[in-house]
Amino acid sequence: MDSIILCAGKGERLKPLTENRPKPMIPIAGKPILQHIIEKVEDLVDNIYIVVKYKKEKIIDYFKDYPKVKFLEQGKIDGTGQAVLTAKDYVDNEFLVINGDIIFEDDLRGFLKYKYAIAVKEVENPENFGVVVLDEENNIVEIQEKPKNPKSNLINAGIYKFDRKIFDLIEKTKISKRGEREITDAIKQLIKEEKVKGIKLEGYWNDVGRPWDVLEANKHLLSKINRDIKGKIEENVVIKGNVVIEENAIIKANSVIEGPAIIKKGAVVGPLAYIRPYTVLMENTFVGNSSEVKASIIMKNTKIPHLSYVGDSIIGENCNFGCNTITANLRFDDKPVKVNIKGKRVESVRKLGIIMGDNVKTGIQVSFMPGVKVGSNCWIGASCLIDRDIESNTFVYKKDELIFKKLNW
Amino acid sequence: MDSIILCAGKGERLKPLTENRPKPMIPIAGKPILQHIIEKVEDLVDNIYIVVKYKKEKIIDYFKDYPKVKFLEQGKIDGTGQAVLTAKDYVDNEFLVINGDIIFEDDLRGFLKYKYAIAVKEVENPENFGVVVLDEENNIVEIQEKPKNPKSNLINAGIYKFDRKIFDLIEKTKISKRGEREITDAIKQLIKEEKVKGIKLEGYWNDVGRPWDVLEANKHLLSKINRDIKGKIEENVVIKGNVVIEENAIIKANSVIEGPAIIKKGAVVGPLAYIRPYTVLMENTFVGNSSEVKASIIMKNTKIPHLSYVGDSIIGENCNFGCNTITANLRFDDKPVKVNIKGKRVESVRKLGIIMGDNVKTGIQVSFMPGVKVGSNCWIGASCLIDRDIESNTFVYKKDELIFKKLNW
Amino acid sequence: MDSIILCAGKGERLKPLTENRPKPMIPIAGKPILQHIIEKVEDLVDNIYIVVKYKKEKIIDYFKDYPKVKFLEQGKIDGTGQAVLTAKDYVDNEFLVINGDIIFEDDLRGFLKYKYAIAVKEVENPENFGVVVLDEENNIVEIQEKPKNPKSNLINAGIYKFDRKIFDLIEKTKISKRGEREITDAIKQLIKEEKVKGIKLEGYWNDVGRPWDVLEANKHLLSKINRDIKGKIEENVVIKGNVVIEENAIIKANSVIEGPAIIKKGAVVGPLAYIRPYTVLMENTFVGNSSEVKASIIMKNTKIPHLSYVGDSIIGENCNFGCNTITANLRFDDKPVKVNIKGKRVESVRKLGIIMGDNVKTGIQVSFMPGVKVGSNCWIGASCLIDRDIESNTFVYKKDELIFKKLNW
Repeated sequence: MDSIILCAGKGERLKPLTENRPKPMIPIAGKPILQHIIEKVEDLVDNIYIVVKYKKEKIIDYFKDYPKVKFLEQGKIDGTGQAVLTAKDYVDNEFLVINGDIIFEDDLRGFLKYKYAIAVKEVENPENFGVVVLDEENNIVEIQEKPKNPKSNLINAGIYKFDRKIFDLIEKTKISKRGEREITDAIKQLIKEEKVKGIKLEGYWNDVGRPWDVLEANKHLLSKINRDIKGKIEENVVIKGNVVIEENAIIKANSVIEGPAIIKKGAVVGPLAYIRPYTVLMENTFVGNSSEVKASIIMKNTKIPHLSYVGDSIIGENCNFGCNTITANLRFDDKPVKVNIKGKRVESVRKLGIIMGDNVKTGIQVSFMPGVKVGSNCWIGASCLIDRDIESNTFVYKKDELIFKKLNW
Repeated sequence: MDSIILCAGKGERLKPLTENRPKPMIPIAGKPILQHIIEKVEDLVDNIYIVVKYKKEKIIDYFKDYPKVKFLEQGKIDGTGQAVLTAKDYVDNEFLVINGDIIFEDDLRGFLKYKYAIAVKEVENPENFGVVVLDEENNIVEIQEKPKNPKSNLINAGIYKFDRKIFDLIEKTKISKRGEREITDAIKQLIKEEKVKGIKLEGYWNDVGRPWDVLEANKHLLSKINRDIKGKIEENVVIKGNVVIEENAIIKANSVIEGPAIIKKGAVVGPLAYIRPYTVLMENTFVGNSSEVKASIIMKNTKIPHLSYVGDSIIGENCNFGCNTITANLRFDDKPVKVNIKGKRVESVRKLGIIMGDNVKTGIQVSFMPGVKVGSNCWIGASCLIDRDIESNTFVYKKDELIFKKLNW
Repeated sequence: MDSIILCAGKGERLKPLTENRPKPMIPIAGKPILQHIIEKVEDLVDNIYIVVKYKKEKIIDYFKDYPKVKFLEQGKIDGTGQAVLTAKDYVDNEFLVINGDIIFEDDLRGFLKYKYAIAVKEVENPENFGVVVLDEENNIVEIQEKPKNPKSNLINAGIYKFDRKIFDLIEKTKISKRGEREITDAIKQLIKEEKVKGIKLEGYWNDVGRPWDVLEANKHLLSKINRDIKGKIEENVVIKGNVVIEENAIIKANSVIEGPAIIKKGAVVGPLAYIRPYTVLMENTFVGNSSEVKASIIMKNTKIPHLSYVGDSIIGENCNFGCNTITANLRFDDKPVKVNIKGKRVESVRKLGIIMGDNVKTGIQVSFMPGVKVGSNCWIGASCLIDRDIESNTFVYKKDELIFKKLNW
């Protein structure tokens, strides 16, 4: 038994988080989405074929020492069908196929006993997904693509059990005008020819399509962690709840940490800092004096040294926050925060801060409005109120119109 | 022996604090002014008749379960004389009459032995009050209304002992053009017909006319409290001086509290917060990380979650302060802070912050200049410098003129 | 054996620090430069003649009770030569002459055995100094003034051993057009007539010419201090490393101090404040709640009460920082911070904050850009972004263009 994990895609909707990494490398609960998936399958299979393309070096570099992992590069033709086909010359007769960008909780052991199976998940908004219709024995009888009037509230959850027959079916599907070959077309044929079991996922499932999905999945996974404190804890530090503090992390004096939270190797917190629930501080991050981080993912090497507040946000790698950088995460009217996703203004959730790429520096006293996206490699000048998205590689600043008067003492 | 407490008035000079409550309901030292008065008389009298009109439901709702309290609603005609008359059909032969908006320290037992008595108080600026002239036996011989050249420095302190004769005298007074009937006119007649004792108040007395009087009275009352800590105190919290922390309040880790201060039921402080002397946090307030509150009254349900400073201020109910909301409370020239009172610019005291109504939300990084008044139901946009009064129901915001440059790496 | 210390000069390049004090009175590592010098010589000499002129009263007032110290006032003619000459009628036959504005580490005992000696110091940029050329026996053979092509990397370090002969030589030198008589001219003659030993300084030496030299010297001297805690330390205070806390200083609850640092008499830190390495808080300073000071000199009576950050800065006496006053100390491009020195834009060091004179008040939420100089007696208005130098006696402020909208609930 082998497995194929599909990691070639770009993750447009998650920009700027995907500017420097493919979506499966976005860290959730302290590790890349892909690592969560590998941990789900590594005990079940002999080989894990990861199909890469966009920013492939990030994946290869991270997972190259994993014993069962092998990398396959998808060619010119895009799409999930083509991705699966990439593994044709390598995989065993039977294999699992998993989308590389989903967070899910169910054990996959149940899939192995079927020749053909597809995970399905009950959702409230099936019209945005591939809808799956089951018969009484849970065999799939129909697949609808983002239907206006879905025939069920079960959707294709991106986990499959196939045998090599799928390769033949994929090869028979057409390549779309956009140069893509999707797995769905082959599956539509498969359910005509074979019994394909629909396996309902019972646990948490999230396809992490938009930035707030990342935070939501992060929240879910953190709610399952156990307390495990290995780093150095200085005087008068108060740690409540389930907090993971890895080796070589330091919590400096008089800080307060409320779990669930994960603080990775080399991270420094405090003194006098405040880490709130559902926060992940990745490797070598720094959150210093009087700073507060809440329900956010701070990627590695990013520094938030003093008097800053980051809430419900995702901050990329190697960022540096000037003193007193503040994110807002709530509208006055309490409506869902709006975010630009692929050029459209979309309602997200009630509390959302900012989404920031890598290598951004902010000056002192910068304010960010809720839902703002900041591209990579930006400089945000001191005292700016940032109320719109900032493109990558932008220097934005302001000049105060100052009034000068002579004081005659 | 009964008592009448006059609570029908509006308290124009205390706007916006009186927009949603009558002046006697302004909380000082943790409870409404009126409650302080009731506690002074409830052991001395059989019935407490509270004369209400403006926002009467606030008073009735709060005191309805007080055993001796009864409510009487003043009709169309305004004024203190008319207010007393409202109780004519209810009160005993002898009774105390007390203005519902004064804070005083003296015991009132001494009044009971006289048929007619009026509290007088020595002040430095009698010309702003009703001036009382006493003879050698401390009987009142003259009353002057805000005289240019006061004949004494004793003023009418708003506490009276009468018998039913006062009703006849009030009924004989004229109703003014403004539709008011003041008690003073009746008293002027009373001192002609009867001996009316002027009883000098020895202790603290404040008629709480302007916002800074509220803070001053609060300071005085807090200076008398004893330490009484019932709420939950977390790790490394340091509490100095006379601090009252009621049940179900929580002081979270590593906070510092310097009394005298009162923290009411359900309030949450910290972690890492700093409460300074002469502060009252009313029920269900929240003062969080790195926030500091000094010599201020924070009314119930108001939240100051992070990195904010509130000094010498009165903040209404249900407000929410964005991160890093800062009040200034001092002028560069060290002169008294100026405040708009009924359309006039008035000098207050050297240190005064802001006066804010109910239901105000501030964005992140908002700055308030000293003496600013913010009406109820306002939104104050992120990063605004508020240097003037804001009318109720206003959304004020700004847009930074940002300059964008492409960074070519 | 006597000594003459030259303290008459103005220190133009160190403005505004020298607006109200002569350069030798700038405090480094907790005491004036001059005091460091006096401590170097007081055990070696009988009399210490301090030649004063500019702001002489500051020197006299501070050192008037030092037993060996005497003051001499330089007349109309300026220059180091003339300064030495001022002492002609007072000093012994042999004497040390020391510039009053240098910080050095070497013991001066070695100078005493030579009739004529001059301290020389190896530097990387001799072209900016008086370059000294030695022969094989370390006798001085040539002196070059700021030469384009220096013949050695040794410079005149401003410490001399002379006898009375030097007076004759000075008297023979001309007074320059600028009305100055420099010691160098006399020395050039001296080395022709006598053997003048060049004594190489082995230890630290800094002529403290520019503001960042002050911080650099401060850093060096602090690196040598020992832990000595005499002041009052409240609950949960964490003190790491070599910290001097003098008597009558108070470190309030839950503060964190990382040495090396010096906190002088009467200073108050905290609660919840953070003092970082290489900081000196002079007498009666105050650094309060959530404020952080790093690698800075805060002169006496200055107050930084709340939510402020001061890094790599020098702040004069009697300043008052509004809540949330923030200094930036780093450029986005990581290049050296630029500073105006005598009208020229000069590169300083990678991390430099601000240089502020005395009696400055800042409003709330003020931001300072790196390398800014603020003259004495200024008011910096609330919420201003200060990105340029501010002349002394200036009131600078801004008005936000606010947009008002009615909220219809």
